[in-house]
Amino acid sequence: MRATVMYGAGDVRVETVPDPGLIEATDAVVRVTRAAICGSDLWPYNQMEHTETGRPMGHEFIGVVEDAGDEVRTVKAGDLVVTPFLWSDGTCVFCREGLHTACLHGGRYGLDGVDGGQGEAVRVPQADGTLVVLPVGPDDELMPSLLTLSDVMATGHYAALSARVGPGKTVAVVGDGAVGLCGVIAARRLGAERIITLGRHAGRTALAEEFGATDVVSERGDEAVERVRELTDGLGAHSVLECVGHDESTVTALEIARAGGAVGRVGVPQSESIPHGVETFFNNVTVAGGPAPARAYIEELLPDVLEGTIEPGRVFDRVASIDEVPDGYRAMNEREALKVMIDF
Amino acid sequence: MRATVMYGAGDVRVETVPDPGLIEATDAVVRVTRAAICGSDLWPYNQMEHTETGRPMGHEFIGVVEDAGDEVRTVKAGDLVVTPFLWSDGTCVFCREGLHTACLHGGRYGLDGVDGGQGEAVRVPQADGTLVVLPVGPDDELMPSLLTLSDVMATGHYAALSARVGPGKTVAVVGDGAVGLCGVIAARRLGAERIITLGRHAGRTALAEEFGATDVVSERGDEAVERVRELTDGLGAHSVLECVGHDESTVTALEIARAGGAVGRVGVPQSESIPHGVETFFNNVTVAGGPAPARAYIEELLPDVLEGTIEPGRVFDRVASIDEVPDGYRAMNEREALKVMIDF
Repeated sequence: MRATVMYGAGDVRVETVPDPGLIEATDAVVRVTRAAICGSDLWPYNQMEHTETGRPMGHEFIGVVEDAGDEVRTVKAGDLVVTPFLWSDGTCVFCREGLHTACLHGGRYGLDGVDGGQGEAVRVPQADGTLVVLPVGPDDELMPSLLTLSDVMATGHYAALSARVGPGKTVAVVGDGAVGLCGVIAARRLGAERIITLGRHAGRTALAEEFGATDVVSERGDEAVERVRELTDGLGAHSVLECVGHDESTVTALEIARAGGAVGRVGVPQSESIPHGVETFFNNVTVAGGPAPARAYIEELLPDVLEGTIEPGRVFDRVASIDEVPDGYRAMNEREALKVMIDF
Repeated sequence: MRATVMYGAGDVRVETVPDPGLIEATDAVVRVTRAAICGSDLWPYNQMEHTETGRPMGHEFIGVVEDAGDEVRTVKAGDLVVTPFLWSDGTCVFCREGLHTACLHGGRYGLDGVDGGQGEAVRVPQADGTLVVLPVGPDDELMPSLLTLSDVMATGHYAALSARVGPGKTVAVVGDGAVGLCGVIAARRLGAERIITLGRHAGRTALAEEFGATDVVSERGDEAVERVRELTDGLGAHSVLECVGHDESTVTALEIARAGGAVGRVGVPQSESIPHGVETFFNNVTVAGGPAPARAYIEELLPDVLEGTIEPGRVFDRVASIDEVPDGYRAMNEREALKVMIDF
């Protein structure tokens, strides 16, 4: 099959690799119909050291089950399924608590002999715990939005939950990437009264407004903090979604949080420590978040996607074939594309 | 009147100062019957630069209302009252949310012309929002426990809330000072299944066990982390109460939190940034806390104190007269006394 392999920073190749087959009785093999390039894929794209063996890429995909192991009960050949960006057993103590990212028997795509998602087929371990059957055909027009359940929409939702978004709250979303935009959708869906989006890219902040943002702050750093304070009677936002992970955005997120507010971090942090530890203490600001347990939210978000209440698929502004994936990385890295969908 | 004034590190004096009187119509003057020395008073006791004018000390007290301004409605002369460690109006947007520490019209004792609590009388601003009437006489045997509602018991309770303690949870309390011990009481009161106390002082950890701690970890640093993991099937604690604020204790608190768990910080942080920002992210650990909005919890905790269900007053192991206050500071600083009550 054809699959995406990264060999180092800037070096993404599409290669012919062996077709996957069942190994464990809990595996399923999924023939991928749609996949995506993730903002987090750009980290190795910018920083990965060269390797001779390469690393299979991708962790967001939808596909048709081709084969399932003897112990698999919840999916069968022919089912269209979506995966969260990590696989998990669904039965361990953490999965039962809804923290599938900490699954005791789970793992990541592209590691330890498990395929990446940016290829024609994937062996999915712990298929019962991982995959969710979709009640539509593989070419349904909702595919882009359904694909976001793998990662970005679930991550935006988790950012909002971590930041304690709720009815009547003033929310600030730091970052106008796909996750930030999904954070706006999530904040609106959870009843936020006001949603301030922080971003500089006009096309993206315009989409944020279509998703429900009530205010756009295009300033950065201290000026952005000042502007958010002006918009909030000097108090700051109850809930701040940090959807970037850079030091500057993290500082901004912490500084625009209202006393007693919460910052939901979903951008992978660039630095070892969280800044403003004393200020957040004296302002009683909660810092929460992490990798989103996407599996916990797929069933909750799915009806809204199927009904068209939310349209997170609008974050995809480019479609690539498998052979166009390397250029998709380049385009996302240069902010020429917001998010790239791969159509097989 | 006689009152406690600090002039620099190690330099605590009891002096004769002018008696307070009403200034604002929202003030009350309280004749202090009991007060306390706080662990946080030891920070300036160790670090304060010398000053000619001195700083009035103390923020935990119970007393009898002597006089009340024309606008004061909820307390009157003769009432026995307890104060939270900050004064607040009770009506601003933050007070209505229960975050009295961020009161828009509140402040600290011992600053801006407001008396400290370690003296014979105090002008209490915003008396209606601040003071809570106690339904007992000033020499009731419950005085020590009632006095903890000013700060340490409320702070332990807030640490537990911030760490999301609840029924069935495994809780770890870092620190065996008065706040840590009250954190144990709070954790038990909120239904924790298991309470691991981390401390090295045998007398204090014994008291923690009487308060409900199920396990004592006397190791420090990596060994303490190892020990807590052994006690929790390798997973760590759902809820961690950080009741010290030192770098080492903060690191320990973050490292013993279970994936998806929460750390409630109530020890004033020593360092500008929160360590382990990446680990807490990937473990989905929430960092919450700050100065406890004690005012929000007094009414909730009061019935338990009056009924004797909780006995936080047992953290007082020494009683001093006003003239013995300087020696009380010394004794607490040398860990000869756990917490000193001042009896007027």
